[in-house]
Formats: sequence, C-alpha cells, structure tokens
Amino acid sequence: MNALPAAVRGVRPALAARHARVRAHSLALAAPLSAEDQCVQAMPDASPTKWHLAHTSWFFEAVVLAAHAPGYRPFDARWGHLFNSYYEALGSRHPRPQRGLLTRPSLSEVHAYRAHVDEAVQDLLASADPAAWPQVEALVELGLQHEQQHQELLLTDILYALWCNPLLPAYAAHEAASLRLAPLPLHWVAGPEGGVAIGHEGEGFAFDNESPRHRQWLQPYRIADRLVSCGEYAEFIADGGYRTASLWLSDGWALVQSQQWTAPLYWLAPGDPRAPSAQWQVFGLHGLRPLDAAAPVSHLSFYEAAAYAEWAGARLPTEAEWEAAAARPGLHELHGHVWQWTRSSYDPYPGYRPWAGAIGEYNGKFMVGQLVLRGSSAATPPGHGRDTYRNFFPPAARWQFSGLRLARDGA
Amino acid sequence: MNALPAAVRGVRPALAARHARVRAHSLALAAPLSAEDQCVQAMPDASPTKWHLAHTSWFFEAVVLAAHAPGYRPFDARWGHLFNSYYEALGSRHPRPQRGLLTRPSLSEVHAYRAHVDEAVQDLLASADPAAWPQVEALVELGLQHEQQHQELLLTDILYALWCNPLLPAYAAHEAASLRLAPLPLHWVAGPEGGVAIGHEGEGFAFDNESPRHRQWLQPYRIADRLVSCGEYAEFIADGGYRTASLWLSDGWALVQSQQWTAPLYWLAPGDPRAPSAQWQVFGLHGLRPLDAAAPVSHLSFYEAAAYAEWAGARLPTEAEWEAAAARPGLHELHGHVWQWTRSSYDPYPGYRPWAGAIGEYNGKFMVGQLVLRGSSAATPPGHGRDTYRNFFPPAARWQFSGLRLARDGA
Amino acid sequence: MNALPAAVRGVRPALAARHARVRAHSLALAAPLSAEDQCVQAMPDASPTKWHLAHTSWFFEAVVLAAHAPGYRPFDARWGHLFNSYYEALGSRHPRPQRGLLTRPSLSEVHAYRAHVDEAVQDLLASADPAAWPQVEALVELGLQHEQQHQELLLTDILYALWCNPLLPAYAAHEAASLRLAPLPLHWVAGPEGGVAIGHEGEGFAFDNESPRHRQWLQPYRIADRLVSCGEYAEFIADGGYRTASLWLSDGWALVQSQQWTAPLYWLAPGDPRAPSAQWQVFGLHGLRPLDAAAPVSHLSFYEAAAYAEWAGARLPTEAEWEAAAARPGLHELHGHVWQWTRSSYDPYPGYRPWAGAIGEYNGKFMVGQLVLRGSSAATPPGHGRDTYRNFFPPAARWQFSGLRLARDGA
Amino acid sequence: MNALPAAVRGVRPALAARHARVRAHSLALAAPLSAEDQCVQAMPDASPTKWHLAHTSWFFEAVVLAAHAPGYRPFDARWGHLFNSYYEALGSRHPRPQRGLLTRPSLSEVHAYRAHVDEAVQDLLASADPAAWPQVEALVELGLQHEQQHQELLLTDILYALWCNPLLPAYAAHEAASLRLAPLPLHWVAGPEGGVAIGHEGEGFAFDNESPRHRQWLQPYRIADRLVSCGEYAEFIADGGYRTASLWLSDGWALVQSQQWTAPLYWLAPGDPRAPSAQWQVFGLHGLRPLDAAAPVSHLSFYEAAAYAEWAGARLPTEAEWEAAAARPGLHELHGHVWQWTRSSYDPYPGYRPWAGAIGEYNGKFMVGQLVLRGSSAATPPGHGRDTYRNFFPPAARWQFSGLRLARDGA
Repeated sequence: MNALPAAVRGVRPALAARHARVRAHSLALAAPLSAEDQCVQAMPDASPTKWHLAHTSWFFEAVVLAAHAPGYRPFDARWGHLFNSYYEALGSRHPRPQRGLLTRPSLSEVHAYRAHVDEAVQDLLASADPAAWPQVEALVELGLQHEQQHQELLLTDILYALWCNPLLPAYAAHEAASLRLAPLPLHWVAGPEGGVAIGHEGEGFAFDNESPRHRQWLQPYRIADRLVSCGEYAEFIADGGYRTASLWLSDGWALVQSQQWTAPLYWLAPGDPRAPSAQWQVFGLHGLRPLDAAAPVSHLSFYEAAAYAEWAGARLPTEAEWEAAAARPGLHELHGHVWQWTRSSYDPYPGYRPWAGAIGEYNGKFMVGQLVLRGSSAATPPGHGRDTYRNFFPPAARWQFSGLRLARDGA
Repeated sequence: MNALPAAVRGVRPALAARHARVRAHSLALAAPLSAEDQCVQAMPDASPTKWHLAHTSWFFEAVVLAAHAPGYRPFDARWGHLFNSYYEALGSRHPRPQRGLLTRPSLSEVHAYRAHVDEAVQDLLASADPAAWPQVEALVELGLQHEQQHQELLLTDILYALWCNPLLPAYAAHEAASLRLAPLPLHWVAGPEGGVAIGHEGEGFAFDNESPRHRQWLQPYRIADRLVSCGEYAEFIADGGYRTASLWLSDGWALVQSQQWTAPLYWLAPGDPRAPSAQWQVFGLHGLRPLDAAAPVSHLSFYEAAAYAEWAGARLPTEAEWEAAAARPGLHELHGHVWQWTRSSYDPYPGYRPWAGAIGEYNGKFMVGQLVLRGSSAATPPGHGRDTYRNFFPPAARWQFSGLRLARDGA
Repeated sequence: MNALPAAVRGVRPALAARHARVRAHSLALAAPLSAEDQCVQAMPDASPTKWHLAHTSWFFEAVVLAAHAPGYRPFDARWGHLFNSYYEALGSRHPRPQRGLLTRPSLSEVHAYRAHVDEAVQDLLASADPAAWPQVEALVELGLQHEQQHQELLLTDILYALWCNPLLPAYAAHEAASLRLAPLPLHWVAGPEGGVAIGHEGEGFAFDNESPRHRQWLQPYRIADRLVSCGEYAEFIADGGYRTASLWLSDGWALVQSQQWTAPLYWLAPGDPRAPSAQWQVFGLHGLRPLDAAAPVSHLSFYEAAAYAEWAGARLPTEAEWEAAAARPGLHELHGHVWQWTRSSYDPYPGYRPWAGAIGEYNGKFMVGQLVLRGSSAATPPGHGRDTYRNFFPPAARWQFSGLRLARDGA
Repeated sequence: MNALPAAVRGVRPALAARHARVRAHSLALAAPLSAEDQCVQAMPDASPTKWHLAHTSWFFEAVVLAAHAPGYRPFDARWGHLFNSYYEALGSRHPRPQRGLLTRPSLSEVHAYRAHVDEAVQDLLASADPAAWPQVEALVELGLQHEQQHQELLLTDILYALWCNPLLPAYAAHEAASLRLAPLPLHWVAGPEGGVAIGHEGEGFAFDNESPRHRQWLQPYRIADRLVSCGEYAEFIADGGYRTASLWLSDGWALVQSQQWTAPLYWLAPGDPRAPSAQWQVFGLHGLRPLDAAAPVSHLSFYEAAAYAEWAGARLPTEAEWEAAAARPGLHELHGHVWQWTRSSYDPYPGYRPWAGAIGEYNGKFMVGQLVLRGSSAATPPGHGRDTYRNFFPPAARWQFSGLRLARDGA
C-alpha cells in the first residue's frame, strides 16, 4: 500500500483558510435549492444535495477526526451508517438507491453537522503537533479534494433531478458564458511518440490512481486541438448517426435501441412535447435554451463519443496520448469545459498500489468496467483539475459533463 | 352509467363549512412534517404528502370547477399533468413511481394552489344557481370524500416512508390510545342467513361500487365479535406460522419466502439490529413502541390474514357476511381500529354501473385482482366510514392499516 | 378437510380399461412431436411435453402407489424432485421455469417410467382388497382426471412453443373442423333467477373446488346462446378496441400498452413480417391459416374478453349465471369449443374445504388472483368437461383456449 | 479497415482436408449428446449444441459461399434469421436468449444443412480460380477458426446445461488426464522489460484483434511459471477469501454477496445437498469428481482471479506481460489447461482496424467492458491457440475454462 502523497506544502493558516473556503463553496452551490430540492434522488447513481453535504462532512469525521482528534465526539453516532458511501472498512451503509428517502436528518440538522465538523477540523489544524502535522495536512487536503469532487457531483446530480421534472425548472437563472468555445477550425496536432512518461510524481496533491509515473510506448498519432462542438454533433445526428449500427460498439448499439437514444442527454428535438419548439434545445443548469452550435457537446456516454469519432473518420485518444499531448502541444480547452472520454479502460497503472487503510478504497476497487475521462469541466471547482487526473465512469453514463476530443493514427 | 347518488341533503352553508373543515384537516395532518418529509416517495404504491395535498386540489379543479365554474382559471395549466392520478379521460399523467421527484412545485406553491382552489369552490358553493346545485353539491361531496380517502393514504404513506429511514423517526410524538382494544374474550356470533340484502341504497353519500343494493344468499356462519389482537398474532408467529406452507395460499407462501416475511410489516423482532431490544417492537405514527398484546394486529397482507385464520381453525368472512352481520349482531370494533380483510375478491355487484363521465374511472376499472376490506381504521377520518364501504387492495399490500376478524362455517 | 368424492362407481375392469385408454391418449398427443419438441419450455407458465408425461406418472406414483401399493419401488427416487409440480407436502421441487433444462431423463427414459408406473397401477387395480378399493378407485380416478387436465395443457403449451419459433411449424398437418361454429344469429336467453343452487353434488367425479353445492342469489339477466366469433372480434379491433382506454380495466390497459397488444394471441395482422399476407391469419395446432370469421374467438386474456363485452354493450356472465343457465336454457357451444371467461374471481364456495392430505393442495391454495372460466375447449379430452367445472387462470393469461360468451343485466 | 491477413499458405488439397477434419470434429464433439441435449439453452449467454452446429455452417454460407460460389443456393433462406449470431450487416436475427426454443429445424435437418454447406465449400475449394483463391483461402480459414472457437463454446455451454440438471449427468464417461498438473513448486520468472513488441505479424492465421504488432513499455515484473492449482485456491476459500471485502474489486464483492458465491462455479462444498459428500467435489465434462488439488483451478470469474491474487500478495499479469514472457521465459502450462485472466481490459491495440466488411463485426465491436484472457484451455481444439491470441469475456463470466497465473511487480 502507498502512503498518502505529500499535499501542497504550506503553512497551517493557509490550509485552514482553504478549508474554510472549500467548505463554504459547497453551501454556496446548494444555496439556490430548497430543502425539497436538496433531498431528492432521481436515480440510484445520483445522490441528493443534502447527502453530498453530509457525506463530505462524514468523510472528515471518519478519515481525519476519528484518527487525529482524540477528544472528538461524533455529531451523531448513527449518521455514519447514513453517510458512509462505500467504505467497507468504515462500517455499515444505507443502501445507495435509498439516499433520497432520508428526509431526516433535516437540511438544517445537516447544516449543524457541517458546522460541528468544521469547527473540529479547524481546531485540529490549529492544534496538531508537528509530528502529526504531515499526516493531518495530507488527510485534510484529501478531504478537501474529496469535497471538490462532490461539488461537481452535486451539480451533475441536481441537473438530472431537475430534468426529471416535467416543469424543467432551472437550477440558476444565470450561467457564466464560459462554455461557449471560440469557433476555431480544428487542427490536428502531432503528439509525443515513443516511450513517454505519464502519471503524477513530486509535489502537489494527486490521487493514488495517478501513480506511479511510468512510461507508455506511443505510436505516432495526432490529436485535435479543440473539443467537438454541439454543431458538429448535430451533423452526426442529422446524418443518421443514431440509426447506423456500424458506427457503434455492440453494447452501445443495444442501448441506443433499448433506451431509444436519439441525441445526447438533455437535448430536446424540435417538436418535443415536453417543450415544443422549432429547433433543438438543450437543458442545463440555466434551464432550457436553444442549442448553441459553438458550445462543446456534453452529456455524452462513451458509446456516443466513440460512435461520433467513428463517423468522423477518427477515434478517441488514449489517456496516455491525451496526457502526453496536454503537456506538450498547444491544445485548447483541456480544462474547464467538458470532461473528455478517452479510449482507455480504467486499469491500474503498472506498479499501482492503493493508499494504506480505509482510503485505499477511494479509487482502486473501481478499476474494472469503467472508462477514463481526462481534463475537467465547467462544473469542476477551479483549481481542482490537472493533466494527470483520471476521472472514470461506466461507458453508459451520460449525466456527467462529458464530451470528447478527436484523435487519429499516424504522424 | 350511473348518475352520482344524492349526497347528504343539506343547506349550502353547511356544505361550505364542511368543505372548509375537511380541507383544513388535510393541512393539519401534514403539519408535523417538514417540506422534505412531504416530498418523499418511498415506493411506487405510496405518494408524497405534498402530492396528496395537490392531487386532492386538482380533483376539485378537474371534476368540479372545470364543469361548473365557468370563469375559473386553473392555477397552472401544466399541473394537471403532475397531479392527475389515473384518469385517462382527464389527460396525460406524470408516471406514478416518479411523484417523489417533484420538488417543484414547492410545498408553499402547493399551499397557494390549495387556497386558490378552495376560494373558487367556496365561491361556487355560494353562487351556483338552483338548477345546477344538485350536481354541484354531489360533486363537491365527492371531492370531500375523495379528500378523506387521501387523508388516510397520507398517513399510511408517510408511515412507510419513515419506516424506510434507519433513524425510525416518529410522525408525531403523541398518539391517541384509541387503538388499544379491551381484552375481550372472543365470542362467535351467528349472522343473518338466506337471501340477505347488502349494498348501499337511499340517502347519504356512497361510492358507486357500493351499489346497487342486492341480495346474496348466505349459508349459516358465525363471526367473531372482535378483532384479532397482536398478542394472538404473536402466538401464530411463535407457533411457526411463517414457516408452515400448509397454512398459506400459494402466492402468499411464495412471498413469505422471497420477501422473507416473518412478522407483520412494522414489527421488529427481539434483537433486530435496527433497534435492539429484548422484546417485539412495533413501529407506528408515534415511533417505535413495545408490542401491545391487546392492540389489534395491523399491517397484514391478505395472505397473512388468511394464513392466521387457517391456523386458528377459522376463515375470513366474506364481505356479504361482514356487512350483514355488522347490521344485526353486536360486533365490536367494526370501525375506527383497522380495516378488516375479507375472503371476497373485489368483483362488481350484480347490476353495477360506474358513474357517468370521468369519475366512472374512480372505482370500476380496478375491479380485478384485489380483495375487499371492510370497516375502517384509526387513520380513517371520523365520519368517513360506513358498513357498506368497500375498500380494496391487492392481496400482497401490507402498508395499510389492515387487520382481520375471524369467521367460521355453521350455525 | 373433505374426503375425496366418490368417483364414477364401476367394476374394476372398467376402470383398468379407462386407465389404459387415458394414459395411451397422452402418448398419442405427444406422438407428432420429436424428442426436441417434447423438451422445450417457451415460458415459465408452460411446461415441456415430456415433463407433462413424466409429471402425470409421478402423480400416480406419489398419490396412489406410495399409499396403496406397499411393495412398489419408485422408478428412480431422484425423479420426485424433478416432477413434483407444486405439492409442498410431497417434497422438494425443481424450479418451474427450469423444466425445459431437463434433457435428462431422456424421452425414452420417461416412456419407460410411464410403463413402469402403468404396470404398477394395473396391478393395484387388479389386486386391491375390497376395504381399500373405494379409496384406490377414487385416487386412480383423480389421477386420470389430472392426466386429462395435462393433456389439454400439453396442447396449449406446445402451441405456444411452436409460435415462438420463427418458422411457425404446425403441431399437426390436419385438424378436425369442430371449432367452426354455425353462423347463428345471437339470441339473448333469460337465465334462472333468485336463490339458485350451483356446484357439484352426488355421483360422478368432481374436483373439490366444485363443492359444496349451495345457493347463490341471481338477479334477472340474459345470456348469449352462442360464443363470440372471430368475425365479431375483428370488428372490435377495427373499431379501435385496443386503442380505447375507457373499455378496459386498469391493469388490462397497462398490459395493452406495455405488451403492445393489438389482437388476440396467435393472430397475425395483414402484412406482419413473420408471414406476410393481405389478410388476418391465425396460428393454431394446424399451423397458420386465414382467419375464419365464423370460428369462436380464442386465446384471449380476461382483460380482452371484458373489454370486448364492454364495447358490445354487454358484460361477462358470472360463473353462477353461466352454470345456472347451462342447466336450463338451450345454450349452444357450452363445451368443446373454447373455455369461457366469467366475471367471477376464483373464490372458494361457501363451506368449501380442500381434500384431506397432499391432494388438498390441488386446487385450494390457488384461490386468489385468478378468474373462473367455464365450459371446455376443443383441446379438452372428450368426457372431461362438465357444467360445474371451475377452470381458473390469471386475468392476463392468453395461451389457453379461452374465449367468451356475453351476458347482460335485466329480464 | 484491414484486409484479411494471409492464412497459412498451403496447397488446396491440404485446406480441403483440414476443412473436412475440422467440420467432422464438431460432429464428434456433439456425438455423445442426444437431440434433446443438443437443443437446450441454459442461460442467455450459452447456446445450444445444435445452434453451434448450424451457426458455424451459416457462417460459411454467409461469409464464404454467398460471395464466392455464384451458383450456390442457400439450404433454406429462412435460416439466416435463425443462425446469424450478431452480424448487423448480414440481416435480422432471432433473439439470443431464445435459441433454445428452436426445436425446429430438427437435429437431423441441421445435419443435412451441414452436409449441404460442406459439399459446396469443398466444391469451391476445388474450383476457385487462381485470382479468387487468396480471398477464398483466407475466408475458409476464417470459417474454420470460427468453427474451432465454437467447438470450445459447445463444450462450455453443454457443461453449464448439464450442471443445471439436478441429476448432474456427465457429458462423457471418460476424460483425458491432461488437466492434472505436475505438483511443481512455483517459481517467479523475470519477464522482458522496456519497449517490448507484442501482437501478431507475418505468416499464419490470426484474428484482427491481435494486430498490429506494436511496442508496449513494460516495467520490471516477475511471472509465475505455473498456474494456480485447485489446492491453492481451496486455501483461499478456507482462509475466508469469499468473506473478506478488502480482497475484492467493488463490483466483484457485490456479486459475491448477491449471487452468494462461496467457491468457483462447479464446485460443491462438503455436505452440499445436491450430492452429499465429506469433501469438495468438482463437476466437469466427466461428471462429479472429488476435488483434485493438483489440477489447475478453473471456472473462475475475473473478480475471483483478482481476489485470489490479492490474497496471495500478488496480482494478475497484464496481457503484454503474459505475451512477452510466453515468448521468452520457460513458463509451464501456457496452453491446453485453462485460459488465464489478465489484468488488461480488452481495448484495441494502437493502430487497430477491424477487417473490411461484415467480418469487421467479428471482434472490434466488443472492445469495451471485457477483460483479456490468454493461453488456451483443455477444451480448445488442438492447434487453435497461440501466444498472441486475445480471448475476452466480461469480468463476471464463470462458465468458461478460466483460471489464472500470478504476477508481481519488481525485478
């Protein structure tokens, strides 16, 4: 098992301030939502906002405070069962598909829980003795990185819940314009070849699944300097992409037929009875809006991304190609727009060992049946993404902010 | 098709007052619950409290106001889709299993909806011209009876939702003691025999399924003068009732095995990890309490009721036996304790015709695959029950306040 | 518990000859089928031909020989597990949906099993002492009645299996013309009213569920003197019967939509790609044939029968009406064409008690969730039907030879 | 798209003889089975023996004869629908889970089909003109390789079907002893490091998924020189392997719990009621036998293989490690015992392109959600395996002859 990697080395006040800032951001994201909104769970894979708020607090309690704050008293001993997500080593768990049934504890009780945990973490940051500090610092940083992951999930999950409501209510009235891409012509950029090193090493936080840094051998390839846009994806649809079996992986084609997929999640075709219109519309955190051809296409499954690439005479990059190219060629929109599906299954890196202890369950036990996404999205908290980051989801998942960038073989 | 039966004949102010009283009672029942509690749906068969509050208002809008209040403007034209339960004739419907996803409209918006509809109904009651009055009166009364049915469902449904919460929160701190039976020895009372008339006729409200009054031929039988108690049912459990196939109907035995039933819904066996205790405990609107041997057993499926009766060397009464006996012999606890499963499938009475129009869907289209329950429960609003009332649920349903009374053949 | 009713009183040789005849008929029905055909199970509710042949033999072994032939040695002690259908009192059972996996024992081994059992039953019939004879006679007769029920099921089940084969092979090249009705105009015949006795009593075999004979009170009604024809049912289809919610019970309408029912089972619409044709075609034991407008409509679910009756301005008869009318008015096609759905749930008769012992599971434990069919079909072995016979199936069942006869209220 | 790779270059008579030999071997494998046995389908993933016999013939018909034998007349034009497995480009398909319903065509008709197709292929091999010969040769070879894959599947599928029969019949009375391993001590052998070439290139048949040959960068590792034995796996079980969450991938642990896995498929624990015994027993083509500690463990899912490796303080090799080591170090039991799960997801090789035309669906469209197995098994036809072969199955699949070989990091 690996030790936790060194987090960003800093002085204690800086980490305390960062802790306060990150924790406050979660509440800010939840603020536009009513207590009812924060309790709902629209599908087993999505969690209620309130659950995210509580689970991230439980994580500090179970991973940081239980080990390093000797006098700490859990807010409520029964809540570990409710807010443990999947850590077998940390006790029993409420069934995931039933998180939405937890009307109690109430939202205000969860707010009190957060305050209780925050105060204890701040106390710990102020009082930990120097010998314990490196471990405390690393675990608090992990708790914050974890919280940031849930900040994005909070948005993806509430978006899906609002989409299930026939009224199609908006999460927020206004949205930053950051998702609109410049209408760049696409350039095919040659990436590094041969035995190329990828993965995390050295200073700065990274998850265990980004290690160890190691070499992969890359054949000559080119990678698109920008993302695929909604306008381009609409051409794929118009050309019968969702009706052409030969473009699809077998499991994807089965889903197209059984789920009757005809467009990305959150797209409404012209004339759709949910909100009749003469043009394509796209539902987002801002509500329903006309399709913006220049925006990056989002909310694709891996299957759709791969089918689009096939249709375009290209393919998806591997994660090694993506990471190697991200470090060298001048690619646009690596971060802050949409996560980018790669053609790489989420396998362990050579020499990978999970962290020691319960946090070893954080990433390692999910390394089968999933695909890697790279980059980060507009919903990713600023500063959270990095080029070595390995996000992962099953190939059928569509409710993430997931799009694609093309690649192709040859120099 | 039948015309609506005459409701209780009364002066307009009396109906207006009754309308206000019944409508207020729904809000009173919801009052102990937070907005979060009122939004949750714990299984497809149960509906959120908020949905009950809105649906009963929609019913007045769609059935009374749309036809008889010409200037009435619906509160929100899109809400018919959300709050229509199952009326094919009244437009499209949100899928029943997804009622819990309706965080919008918010609870306060639903309160405003109720006020809007109530005002319009009160206006109508004040202004309807004499020619329209009989129909208005009948439909408003139907709306109130409908609301009362949902008042009971509101309680059954929230009880189930709270049960699904590992914290086992109580709906209300205190509960009336009305469910405790006097510890009567059981007497077998002979019921009326031969060609006996049952069913509703004459004055007073009744649902269409209680008509027409007609004869059924009853063989000699005896019926218990009181309900089966929790203490008696506990003996059935202790005697291996849930492990003895020969006591059960085939479908019931399959459920015992696949669902691992070992006791009524809401009973916790001694030592159950959800709330360890040395004795049986029963969850109710008041929370978890030690089993009260003298209380009527409740929350049984038909299968359990029938298996208990078989074990006791008896049987369930038919609905005709129940109704005939209720009218003559001095039976205890006919109303206000628990609904009583009968051995009668929910078939139409001879000569039955549903009401004309959309309200013809109220009862008639459900007349297959269900069993009749008679009496009424502690959760039934006072004044709502009557001896001709035909409640009905599928034989596997356990989340109602459903118990049993025994019967046997012979004089 | 009831004792077995007296079977047809006869001399021993007559029963021995009847036993040989009935048992041979099962083999004759299977004869057109290959060993492969006889092994297949096309859905959980249907059983393989070979399983029918073996199960009926096991029934003699377990119910007759085990109790009354002291020296009898079971053909193979392990086969009880394979061929016990649903008798909890008679040991463990192979899961019903997996009967088609039993390629072993082979068909020829099952033939040997039948011969082994037949020889032992014949020996018993020849040697049973007079004291035991009444019970032996009754149980052998029960075994034969049971076998006859499975003879019909053998045909219904293989028909369904052949239907699932895209080649639509025929069970038999030629079929008797008995299913064609004379093109009679329909007459509405008044049935007996008042306290009318129904049910079995006296000499002759009957199942326990036909007893006791008892009175039911019948309101004035009329019943059609003939069955509904395919031509009439085609008019219902052409008039949009399968698209009109108001004609259907709620559960039936849900099935129409989820299963996309548009016609009876085994009907192919004009142009169906399975076997293109300009007209309706109907699949039967004889293969695919053009729809015969004068034949009785068959292979309906209860829901379809009830919807048709509603469309026709009529209703289904209750089972008491059917039986009372069958005994008095001159109705056509009571037997030998199609089973006739009634509007009666399969509830126990007043005073009903199942037979004593394991055979008490024969009928009684299925008395919930099913509807009664009366009469008999062209697939019923001659002599097996009678007017008091209560056949029963769930309301969604369509693979039986099930049609309908109309009734209506009033004198 | 790739062209078909050159097959083994040979003279025509050699290929004709090989064709006759391979085709005859399929019939020989089916010979111990009755027509009933050959028709059964025990789960959707498995196919009936008869279907394998017919499908492999259809493959020659659709892929070879349709394109290259101009006068060829299909045996029955309707059979393409029945026996096309998954080729979207080659027309409609009977649903996979319903292959067991195809009692028609009969086994003897399928035998006639095989003879018809074989004759046409032999004619083609004798008559193809030199210009067409390379393509004909390549496609016939593909048909034979395809047939060989189905020969192994025929055995895996019938083994599963026989396992589902409570009688636990044997496929064959005697089995070769080849699966017994010499009781070797395990040696950890260092494999090649750095930029190592893997994949197929040059002469000899290979599937498209084995190309192109390319480099992968291997970190230092060691690989076990022999397979894991049943005795070793039994120690894992005895040590609580199936009860220790920390050894398992998350999805695997969920299956252990929901499917109640406690041993490999086909293992019966001491005392199992299916066949009581004091020791472990293993079901195989030879029937039930006492566990042989020296035999390679087989019929593992990927999850079990990975959990065992974790328990053993090791890991599974990647497919590149396996292939590189197979070519250099002296590993035992690479072929002919059990397929060996690797830690590699079944992703396309860099530069991979599927074959042109319908046969492009052979492998490429399955490249997601599966894991690679290397080597070959005792059920693989002799001569079919090779070191570059990429077998693949979903991680939960247990009915293949699948075991494991350990690996570990470091020099």
